[in-house]
Amino acid sequence: MINVGGRTLKNVVGYDLTMLFVGSEGTLGVVTKAELKLNPMPPARKTIMAVYDDVAKAGENVFRVLENGVIPNKIELLDNWVINRIEEMMPMGLPKDADAVLLFETDGIPEAVEKETEKIVEIAKKYGATDVRVAKDQAEADKYWLARRAGFAAVFGKAPTVFAEDVTVPRGRIPDLIRKCKELAKKYAVEIVVLGHAGDGNLHPAILTDIKNKDHYDRAVKAMDEIIEGAVELGGVISGEHGIGLEKQKFFRKIENPKVIDLMKGIKALVDPNNIMNPGKIW
Amino acid sequence: MINVGGRTLKNVVGYDLTMLFVGSEGTLGVVTKAELKLNPMPPARKTIMAVYDDVAKAGENVFRVLENGVIPNKIELLDNWVINRIEEMMPMGLPKDADAVLLFETDGIPEAVEKETEKIVEIAKKYGATDVRVAKDQAEADKYWLARRAGFAAVFGKAPTVFAEDVTVPRGRIPDLIRKCKELAKKYAVEIVVLGHAGDGNLHPAILTDIKNKDHYDRAVKAMDEIIEGAVELGGVISGEHGIGLEKQKFFRKIENPKVIDLMKGIKALVDPNNIMNPGKIW
Repeated sequence: MINVGGRTLKNVVGYDLTMLFVGSEGTLGVVTKAELKLNPMPPARKTIMAVYDDVAKAGENVFRVLENGVIPNKIELLDNWVINRIEEMMPMGLPKDADAVLLFETDGIPEAVEKETEKIVEIAKKYGATDVRVAKDQAEADKYWLARRAGFAAVFGKAPTVFAEDVTVPRGRIPDLIRKCKELAKKYAVEIVVLGHAGDGNLHPAILTDIKNKDHYDRAVKAMDEIIEGAVELGGVISGEHGIGLEKQKFFRKIENPKVIDLMKGIKALVDPNNIMNPGKIW
Repeated sequence: MINVGGRTLKNVVGYDLTMLFVGSEGTLGVVTKAELKLNPMPPARKTIMAVYDDVAKAGENVFRVLENGVIPNKIELLDNWVINRIEEMMPMGLPKDADAVLLFETDGIPEAVEKETEKIVEIAKKYGATDVRVAKDQAEADKYWLARRAGFAAVFGKAPTVFAEDVTVPRGRIPDLIRKCKELAKKYAVEIVVLGHAGDGNLHPAILTDIKNKDHYDRAVKAMDEIIEGAVELGGVISGEHGIGLEKQKFFRKIENPKVIDLMKGIKALVDPNNIMNPGKIW
């Protein structure tokens, strides 16, 4: 039992064990207690929905906003397929003919939120959004965020087998990643749904398939493999949030420098010599 | 030669080696190339100087500002001794009879900067600042920050031997740490100068002494040891920015859990089995 980290903002005492354990997927130990730093709630927030006739344009809008010095606390992407499934589940007036929508949320002091909201509206219009709506109150904003949260339920309810990815690219490469998904959907004749945390460069492209339909399933696997390889070619990584687990071990071994793998395995053996911590995961 | 990290905002592929190497003081390897993420320059900034008749009140003001949800990008502390040495070196109208001053800088969009500046002025007055000045332009702001930068030169020019510490405490405990320094200055009859990054809970208390004056030097060493132990008792750490190096090894071994030390030493042996990386430092 050890304590790592602490309550100070700065700490350079020895090696950073906190960040070594965080994200280790239980393979280095069990976290029995965690103390988290809380930030004060921002006094104001505002939601903007921007509508696009081309999902790649939505992707471009993400970095246009960021390069203009506006850093919203969220930028989320829903594509046409997800929008229509949400409207089937709970009609709320989302634009069913849009190729994609982006949901932005700004937060901070009211004056800053107002200004950043104006700037997002201006940039979205300038770079090809066909419609931009600022939620007039919290109720309308809540409706959009409910739609976003329903996105995954919509995907997972619609096919016997769903692959959901977690690839992450530098934020300027989001349009390229989205275009790649579109190409692969055509190449392998599968439906690839695109949604995710566009503001982080982290998308969760999902492929709807059925493990019992061997031909379709095999094409889905190939398409997903190419999405992952494509993300890496764009300077990205195979996982932004969810880790290696079981499924991504083959990509991890293929893509990562063997010296890096050896070093990480050495740390695993040092901390857990009997391999009792979440055995089989990552390694 | 390995690459760690990357250009994505999120990355949970394997263990976080970047943070393991950062802060390892050269004991795990040599950084041959570093790519840094840049944030856009904030469009506006403003400097506030608040004056106190008691340095502990200045310390309290730091967390009063933070607990009110205002997070300035800098809060720096100068005590009476430093103020007077700066005024000797380059007279610029600092309040020579003040026990301490805090320098705040806010940044962001102009409306937010304006609002946060007002709030800092209000809170500083409410919690006992005897005078609060908002720099009327960048020239006046630059003058205050020049004073801050001159602070260390002022300290190091004034005694044959100077101990400068790097202790860091939770930000709510800054007044306690400052009071501890005052007590120890009396107890050991040495001059303890207090300045540093108060907004981070990171102070650099300095003791002026002379290694050739054995009696004085011994008292200075004892005072410094007690400052370090006092910071740890307040929930702090022995180093916020500068690391263990040679000087803090005795405190590191005394304060840190031996299991944590063993784990860190294991990582050192794994990465650098021949002990050729900055040998003698930390370990």
